[in-house]
Amino acid sequence: MTNRICNFNAGPAALPLHVLEEIQDSFLDFQGSGMSITEVSHRSKWFDDVINDAVLRMKRLLNLDDSYHVLFLQGGASQQFCMIPMNFLSGGATADYVNTGTWSTKAIKEAEIQGKPIRVAASSEDKNFSYIPKDVSYNPDAVYAHITSNNTIKGTQWGEFPDTGGVPLIADMSSDILSRSFDTGKFGMFYAGAQKNMGPAGVCVVVIRDDFLEMVPDDIPTMLRYSTFAAKNSMFNTPPCFAVYTVQLVLKWIEETIGGLEKMAETNQEKAALLYKTIDESGFYKGTAALGSRSMMNVTFRLPDESLEKTFVAEALENRLGGLKGHRSVGGCRASIYNPTPLAAVQTLCDFMKAFERKKG
Amino acid sequence: MTNRICNFNAGPAALPLHVLEEIQDSFLDFQGSGMSITEVSHRSKWFDDVINDAVLRMKRLLNLDDSYHVLFLQGGASQQFCMIPMNFLSGGATADYVNTGTWSTKAIKEAEIQGKPIRVAASSEDKNFSYIPKDVSYNPDAVYAHITSNNTIKGTQWGEFPDTGGVPLIADMSSDILSRSFDTGKFGMFYAGAQKNMGPAGVCVVVIRDDFLEMVPDDIPTMLRYSTFAAKNSMFNTPPCFAVYTVQLVLKWIEETIGGLEKMAETNQEKAALLYKTIDESGFYKGTAALGSRSMMNVTFRLPDESLEKTFVAEALENRLGGLKGHRSVGGCRASIYNPTPLAAVQTLCDFMKAFERKKG
Repeated sequence: MTNRICNFNAGPAALPLHVLEEIQDSFLDFQGSGMSITEVSHRSKWFDDVINDAVLRMKRLLNLDDSYHVLFLQGGASQQFCMIPMNFLSGGATADYVNTGTWSTKAIKEAEIQGKPIRVAASSEDKNFSYIPKDVSYNPDAVYAHITSNNTIKGTQWGEFPDTGGVPLIADMSSDILSRSFDTGKFGMFYAGAQKNMGPAGVCVVVIRDDFLEMVPDDIPTMLRYSTFAAKNSMFNTPPCFAVYTVQLVLKWIEETIGGLEKMAETNQEKAALLYKTIDESGFYKGTAALGSRSMMNVTFRLPDESLEKTFVAEALENRLGGLKGHRSVGGCRASIYNPTPLAAVQTLCDFMKAFERKKG
Repeated sequence: MTNRICNFNAGPAALPLHVLEEIQDSFLDFQGSGMSITEVSHRSKWFDDVINDAVLRMKRLLNLDDSYHVLFLQGGASQQFCMIPMNFLSGGATADYVNTGTWSTKAIKEAEIQGKPIRVAASSEDKNFSYIPKDVSYNPDAVYAHITSNNTIKGTQWGEFPDTGGVPLIADMSSDILSRSFDTGKFGMFYAGAQKNMGPAGVCVVVIRDDFLEMVPDDIPTMLRYSTFAAKNSMFNTPPCFAVYTVQLVLKWIEETIGGLEKMAETNQEKAALLYKTIDESGFYKGTAALGSRSMMNVTFRLPDESLEKTFVAEALENRLGGLKGHRSVGGCRASIYNPTPLAAVQTLCDFMKAFERKKG
């Protein structure tokens, strides 16, 4: 047995041990091909089976109807920030954006760089993005309303998705995709860099609806059109095969080992409840996100002072609890508890936090 | 020992067994981190060491001076086709393109989609792209002259890079990067999808010179600017960590196991000579590329008829020789013999070809 740590990284993040072991076991000979998964052609039956199975599992898990297409792109969510306005805002069309933190801000910036006439419908910048705006009024003429479903850095999350009065949502779900079920019918598109809840870095999953594909203009570069990927089952050019394969195994793990999204959500709720309880009962740790906006994925908290925070992160690592430092832009501490993080790891963290408080509090 | 085949895939392609074994061995615990390489943060010292080592090795192997930057992007060479004109052809600036096959044609198309005033300086389309044009006359006002150094599908390769009269070259080197040494000083930029000569699918290496970085306009999307990647050591956003790591190991293998690019080129020449000799001496197999334009990486050939070609590919596979079918757009047979393909595998293929000829010829 190897010397594994409890990994609370914000992304790239923990993967299910079961998945890692399967990759390792078959790494020199994938499915009897006599090749590594990194060596098989993307035009082979081996890879076809991988990508088709990944698409089917994603559709089943999210209960997607046939109007939705599951695509595998590169460039992360950051590249989607520019592709979304490029693909859907032609000829003066407008869109609404809700600004809930660093990633929303970047998405807005990329629309503005292209001179697209978007509107910031709401923002929580007034309180350092510590909450999710409620009762936002959306522009009925907007082609879409863009939100960030979970804010990795600020530790906030949309508990319920907003009623936009019929404007299709587009959501960056990089840090909470597949953590719970939701009504996909509200969405024209949602997307997620895989490296948090469902795979390694290097692939971005895009789920897009027919009517959004139909908006894609043909005078933008081929690799920047969603329709290019939809028409070729994500294989217009060579896809990031290893990352797609790992996502496939994580989806299989959610379906077959965990038992689906309801079960996944239950465990995620349990993990988050345990951690927030530890924080709230302590008087030593202090959660930074507003009640009602707290993330189930990224639990952000402060200690009484920065020096203690530094000691906390260092001592945690000595106890094989890694990745607890907050994002460099905000400081503090953060435990990212994505799908693959086991409940037992969260329990271990809570025990450590209580012991640390007894010693230093 | 696993049941490995001789892999002649065109890409994704064979990787050095030594590299695959190192990945496999450390897959659950990278460098004592207690995490898989797929689980470590890209902001950690572990990944910093990986990417910095990859950059240094690339610079050493290619003998690059300090004016060149080694970047890791996503989207493959196909995304570069649109980024190159977008980054370097502002305000009516022009460029020359030499069309030597499928990939050059795609590069040209992406410049045209953007309405950039480029010129096709030469083309070998008149003879089905079976040769590399000689004595091309380049436009002295061109910002760059774009070539495809090796044509994976047509089996041709630039033996020497052209004299452009001082116009900087940009080359798509996806299928022959690191297969030989060359005078990098002629190049403003060169780039390569990793999945042929140096890694798995999912990362594209870009080598770019200072004067080309300085041309990048600031009104294009952030993720489509080369300067974004140069300013942040390829980590403006999460890079494709596993693919970068595998490239690092392949570079290490070339430097430390093979002994550098001169040795690599010697072996590559030996492999190609052996295979072309088998073809030329047979009267049964017929090479499709013109003498003087033949690729050292992708050896394309025909058999007397298509039915024999089909039998050849099938019987080869029964003999554990995989990936010998030509590209679906041209038919025939193709043996891709990139850096990782051992000389012994090529010898085995030649023996099989001779035996097949004796039986069917």
